[in-house]
Amino acid sequence: MLKITSLQNPKIKQVVALRDKRVRDRVQSFLIEGYRELCRAVKGGVPLVSLFYSPAHFLGDNENTLIQKVRQQGVETFAVNERVFGKISYRDRPDGLLAVATQTHLALQDLDYKMSTERPSLFLVAESIEKPGNLGSILRSSDAAGVDGLLVCDRCTDIYNPNVIRASVGTLFTVPVLEVSSKEAMEWLKNHQINIVATSPDAKKTFTQADLSGPIAVAVGTEQLGLSEKWLEASDLQVSIPMHGTADSLNVAAATTLLLYEALRQRS
Amino acid sequence: MLKITSLQNPKIKQVVALRDKRVRDRVQSFLIEGYRELCRAVKGGVPLVSLFYSPAHFLGDNENTLIQKVRQQGVETFAVNERVFGKISYRDRPDGLLAVATQTHLALQDLDYKMSTERPSLFLVAESIEKPGNLGSILRSSDAAGVDGLLVCDRCTDIYNPNVIRASVGTLFTVPVLEVSSKEAMEWLKNHQINIVATSPDAKKTFTQADLSGPIAVAVGTEQLGLSEKWLEASDLQVSIPMHGTADSLNVAAATTLLLYEALRQRS
Repeated sequence: MLKITSLQNPKIKQVVALRDKRVRDRVQSFLIEGYRELCRAVKGGVPLVSLFYSPAHFLGDNENTLIQKVRQQGVETFAVNERVFGKISYRDRPDGLLAVATQTHLALQDLDYKMSTERPSLFLVAESIEKPGNLGSILRSSDAAGVDGLLVCDRCTDIYNPNVIRASVGTLFTVPVLEVSSKEAMEWLKNHQINIVATSPDAKKTFTQADLSGPIAVAVGTEQLGLSEKWLEASDLQVSIPMHGTADSLNVAAATTLLLYEALRQRS
Repeated sequence: MLKITSLQNPKIKQVVALRDKRVRDRVQSFLIEGYRELCRAVKGGVPLVSLFYSPAHFLGDNENTLIQKVRQQGVETFAVNERVFGKISYRDRPDGLLAVATQTHLALQDLDYKMSTERPSLFLVAESIEKPGNLGSILRSSDAAGVDGLLVCDRCTDIYNPNVIRASVGTLFTVPVLEVSSKEAMEWLKNHQINIVATSPDAKKTFTQADLSGPIAVAVGTEQLGLSEKWLEASDLQVSIPMHGTADSLNVAAATTLLLYEALRQRS
């Protein structure tokens, strides 16, 4: 068994460095922390590079089974002491499991197989979301709604940000998600006859009045400004969310969830 | 004009101390940072104690009008330099405005006036929410849905946590919100013939199949475990949210928003 007890170990330094987006982009790796997240990564076939574990932090009884499973896939595993795990962990409540994985990138054509002729497609476009917590929550709702794909357009936060993975509770690994330019996404949606549904406070129809039963891509924009002009112009339908209070908008993840579940309601 | 240029100024130290819940509870004060949040606090009649501003941080043109308005109410205002504001600010993008305010606490009987005989009541119960961002997002959705009241039961995060206020974008000051024990909340709801609607993965009816058109209180629970047994037992109706992916639940704020807007849809 390989053991690491020094904070100066180069592998530990590499792990910490992966919190930085530029490093992630350069080496095309990322971090996955937590039992639940790792289980979903294994289930989703995410290629792991190495696994660090600290038995003193374990919260459950199934950690060793997971470590065994990962080891059998040929992944290097390292036992680390509490102090070392404290250094590499980025969570409030560490549970003693953290892996380095290789980034994979879907392309738009990979989504084609998700298209069904039996039921109308449901896609989500998330334009330039800034906060990792929001992008993670959007992923979680996309998973729950069973979307055919999530297009992260003109990214601000990369999908491999540790806080995206945390807020997504690992659904990043089970939702078909890809980072793409708005231009490419719009072309692909038009070519596939998928109507773009934009949320806009100025729209006349509310989201429950509009017909969301056909093949659609719900599009949501940045926390500060909402969807950009280019997406509003490209949209086939604009819908509003009734606001009965003093604020003029909902949190973007909350708005996303409303739209996706209204589409599901109309299809059921 | 009063100016503060030293980080050692006792007023500055008091402001920083208010980030601590125990200090907030003891002195019954709290912090409000940001132009938008302060405008909503003034609109909501929140009693301000003092206002600190740093012109170098201003992002808009209306800050001085707001400062003037606050000053006319007899609130002490202090110009501070960039360094001092950097010390007291807790936001990623400070906009040069931060106030200390006095906590106010509604009681259950204060909600009575919100009850209408013309339309069915809509309340929200949030039990033991842990993350300030979630509680803030729940407040934002409660404002948007125009709830008659938000009952924060058996609190974990206090409503005056700076990150609750930030995530609520100041709707904390416009939604009737109160901290209360679960026991008192249940009694009050029963006495007012308000049906408790609990979300539970085991419920047979989905939230769109159930009748949410009468007077109800939607109840949601902790991020980790959902609603406690006592709320499930006290509930008049249990509903599920269909989950089509790998995760077994939505983010609590997302789930809350779905339930509240489904109630609105059924009433419109």
